[in-house]
Amino acid sequence: MEWTREKRYLPYNEWDADTLMHLQSQASRSNYQMRYHLRPISGLVNDPNGFSYYNSEYHVFYQSYPFGAVHGLKSWVHFKSQDLVHWERQGLAIEPSFKGDSHGAYSGSAKQIGDKLFIMYTGNHRSEDWIRTPYQISAWMNKDGVVSDKEILFKNPSHITEHFRDPQIIEKDGTYYAILGAQDEQNKKGHVDIWKSQNLKDWEEIGFLNFTDEDMGYMIECPNLVQVDDKWVLIFCPQGLNKSVANYQNIYPNMYVIADDIDFENAKMINPSKLKNLDEGFDVYATQAFNAPDGKAYEISWVGLPDITYPTDDENWANCLSQVKELSIKDGKLIQKPVKSIESIRKTESKLTDKLIKNTTSGQYELKLTIAKNQSTTLHLAANKDLSDSLILNIDTNDGKLVLDRSKGKKVAVDYGETRSCEIDSNESVDLDIFVDHSLIEIFVNDGEHVLTGRFFTNPENQKISFDKDTDFTGKFWEMETIF
Amino acid sequence: MEWTREKRYLPYNEWDADTLMHLQSQASRSNYQMRYHLRPISGLVNDPNGFSYYNSEYHVFYQSYPFGAVHGLKSWVHFKSQDLVHWERQGLAIEPSFKGDSHGAYSGSAKQIGDKLFIMYTGNHRSEDWIRTPYQISAWMNKDGVVSDKEILFKNPSHITEHFRDPQIIEKDGTYYAILGAQDEQNKKGHVDIWKSQNLKDWEEIGFLNFTDEDMGYMIECPNLVQVDDKWVLIFCPQGLNKSVANYQNIYPNMYVIADDIDFENAKMINPSKLKNLDEGFDVYATQAFNAPDGKAYEISWVGLPDITYPTDDENWANCLSQVKELSIKDGKLIQKPVKSIESIRKTESKLTDKLIKNTTSGQYELKLTIAKNQSTTLHLAANKDLSDSLILNIDTNDGKLVLDRSKGKKVAVDYGETRSCEIDSNESVDLDIFVDHSLIEIFVNDGEHVLTGRFFTNPENQKISFDKDTDFTGKFWEMETIF
Repeated sequence: MEWTREKRYLPYNEWDADTLMHLQSQASRSNYQMRYHLRPISGLVNDPNGFSYYNSEYHVFYQSYPFGAVHGLKSWVHFKSQDLVHWERQGLAIEPSFKGDSHGAYSGSAKQIGDKLFIMYTGNHRSEDWIRTPYQISAWMNKDGVVSDKEILFKNPSHITEHFRDPQIIEKDGTYYAILGAQDEQNKKGHVDIWKSQNLKDWEEIGFLNFTDEDMGYMIECPNLVQVDDKWVLIFCPQGLNKSVANYQNIYPNMYVIADDIDFENAKMINPSKLKNLDEGFDVYATQAFNAPDGKAYEISWVGLPDITYPTDDENWANCLSQVKELSIKDGKLIQKPVKSIESIRKTESKLTDKLIKNTTSGQYELKLTIAKNQSTTLHLAANKDLSDSLILNIDTNDGKLVLDRSKGKKVAVDYGETRSCEIDSNESVDLDIFVDHSLIEIFVNDGEHVLTGRFFTNPENQKISFDKDTDFTGKFWEMETIF
Repeated sequence: MEWTREKRYLPYNEWDADTLMHLQSQASRSNYQMRYHLRPISGLVNDPNGFSYYNSEYHVFYQSYPFGAVHGLKSWVHFKSQDLVHWERQGLAIEPSFKGDSHGAYSGSAKQIGDKLFIMYTGNHRSEDWIRTPYQISAWMNKDGVVSDKEILFKNPSHITEHFRDPQIIEKDGTYYAILGAQDEQNKKGHVDIWKSQNLKDWEEIGFLNFTDEDMGYMIECPNLVQVDDKWVLIFCPQGLNKSVANYQNIYPNMYVIADDIDFENAKMINPSKLKNLDEGFDVYATQAFNAPDGKAYEISWVGLPDITYPTDDENWANCLSQVKELSIKDGKLIQKPVKSIESIRKTESKLTDKLIKNTTSGQYELKLTIAKNQSTTLHLAANKDLSDSLILNIDTNDGKLVLDRSKGKKVAVDYGETRSCEIDSNESVDLDIFVDHSLIEIFVNDGEHVLTGRFFTNPENQKISFDKDTDFTGKFWEMETIF
């Protein structure tokens, strides 16, 4: 099937229900499908949206194109949870319905205000000549999950191009702020743009956020400001960032900066750090973070990247979301940990002793390892019998290096390299908390000091986990329950 | 919306995807929706189908009409599980696709044969004059969940009317038998009809099963033969059964007979018992049972009844399936117990002491009680503060009687009575294992000697569980995890 522009933007009511049910079945049955991470019901998933706490429950939505593994007419699909692990699928929540979002209900955020969930998102509108206007829109969700009262708040001012999107709504000292990704009209550079409002209806621009002297490339997507411990963290996705500014290998990175404080009124981060890579793996993008009412900072990411194709495109579905991580700061670095409640979906615990960790697994498990110092070893995950097809993790506690290698199996984004690495302390043991969910891996290193996230596509029948040599380690293993 | 015949039988590809997504969202969000029982994704669910063990997993399907709370063009929706509790939704599996099932892929069964799942079901075909032909159809599902090779095997012979359906496939001593519900052409009486085949392609009728001398009414639906301990049990749904033959209150009952053996070749049950009511509650029908490879007998039921409307019809969805129960026989009676793995979805255990059992619950829980002898008490479930709106269970261990009363809340099938009762031993304590899932209750009495299943529709905000007076009891309580 050729994905013409006309087809991508066909209204949902011009698709037939039988096609959708078959796409849903196909996505459910895939051997590469995730079972405890938020996954597509059908079609393509991208950015997490509206990650929030409302009516005593956590909520998250994702960007969805239900009819194939392409970026077409986008909507929001809703999930809610009491523990950030057991998510209940609520279904389609926001779809294109008026001029403001006629060509897609794009990304945004949410926050409880009064007894409703206030939602702010970017409506993608195209004229007949295909000229884009990015409308920033408000809407309200009630306790029954019904979203109504969509209203256009503002569009791009003249000094910002059509690339103006992904509003994050936050409140500080009684004033509401919207944090947006923006491209400067004059020099086509990427910025974080700050707006403010007292009543959520009338908005005025404060200006571009000052958080670096470096050139951030041609666009910044999905900016998020979140309070972590006593600092402010900006999480964002620069596009076209020069690798001399901050090194990365993915097509576009997801970066962060830590500042002592923010002066919202003057759009200025106080004493910001240099840019750091949020995730050292292959596929994290569009991370959305928020402060829960208890003050904790949580994040969730799109596991997928713009402009990259994945092997499951052939199965008409693509991508997923990461697990939720709790944020803290240590030694000027962001620490990202699994939430405590992830332990509630662990099944029976096995203690590990042999270098052959498991001969067979279900493909959805947690593997917690401590590798002693002075080891140079290779862990094969999702491996066949002779370990010739596997996801490879090279662990060197002498020189202090981890290398994740997805060169085996179906190819993904090879132009951007088939390995990702991170430095660890040399001559020290290393703790690895590894979550595998069929075609997804999330590796937490030393209790969240580093995270490496990636998709991989070895033969789905591969069920072996093994070191390739005798290794001095201790470990535990749990199969994980299915949530989806 | 008026459900004309034309609308009910509209092909799925003439419905639009947007409508379906909204129906799915509406079903997900309902406060009456089940969260650990198999529930509709959208629309109406009725009979369980194809309950089987294949490729090292349990499988079940249900009859589905996705577009509303009515009986329209039916398809099969597939679920699989490793433990009979954690079901994974696989989606649409069989839908009308040829003359044989043009007006509905109706109920049937499944059995692993070779490396595929053999499926046998009734295709509903209507002529232009709306004359029905019930085709018995075979199909094969592979390990990827794809069903293909549909083939018409046989239709109603001349001595059976158009009411000829629900084939159960079983194998005995190298011969395949199909057990069907049938209406005699001559006198319009209901029967269980037995067919046989050596190769699953060529079938011949053996004749009506001799299991009673009584008149079974005008039709028998969903007959199932299953080996339990060293006996054979026939589970079936007679329609129009005279209450002098076996007492029941529902519009149609789900009955069973226990025999010492079956002579398949002569279509005769050896020493059959009298008819007994399978479930003493309000809403069990179309129970499907099968023998797993380990010899155990499991059953699962439709919780819903033909020709009955339910309050959630207004929300465009209806009905659910029961939990899976394991069968055994004691003192000539069928014992139905929850499967052991249901314990795996229990959350934190609370020990109960006070007559106020819980002030608030999530609406999905297990409550295990032992009521001492010499008690006459009332347990209010899903109750409001002053217990004026609740599902009522009257427990009398003096006289030996349980009465389940759903007269409060939204009305359901009041013409068939608002209470159901069962006799228990007088002057003895009674054990109750009660499972509540929002608008569904399943009560197991004395370790499965009686089961009372029912839907109820008190105010969904009611969250209290309490005795109305001091009661001598011991008990435990668990909130249950969400599966769907």
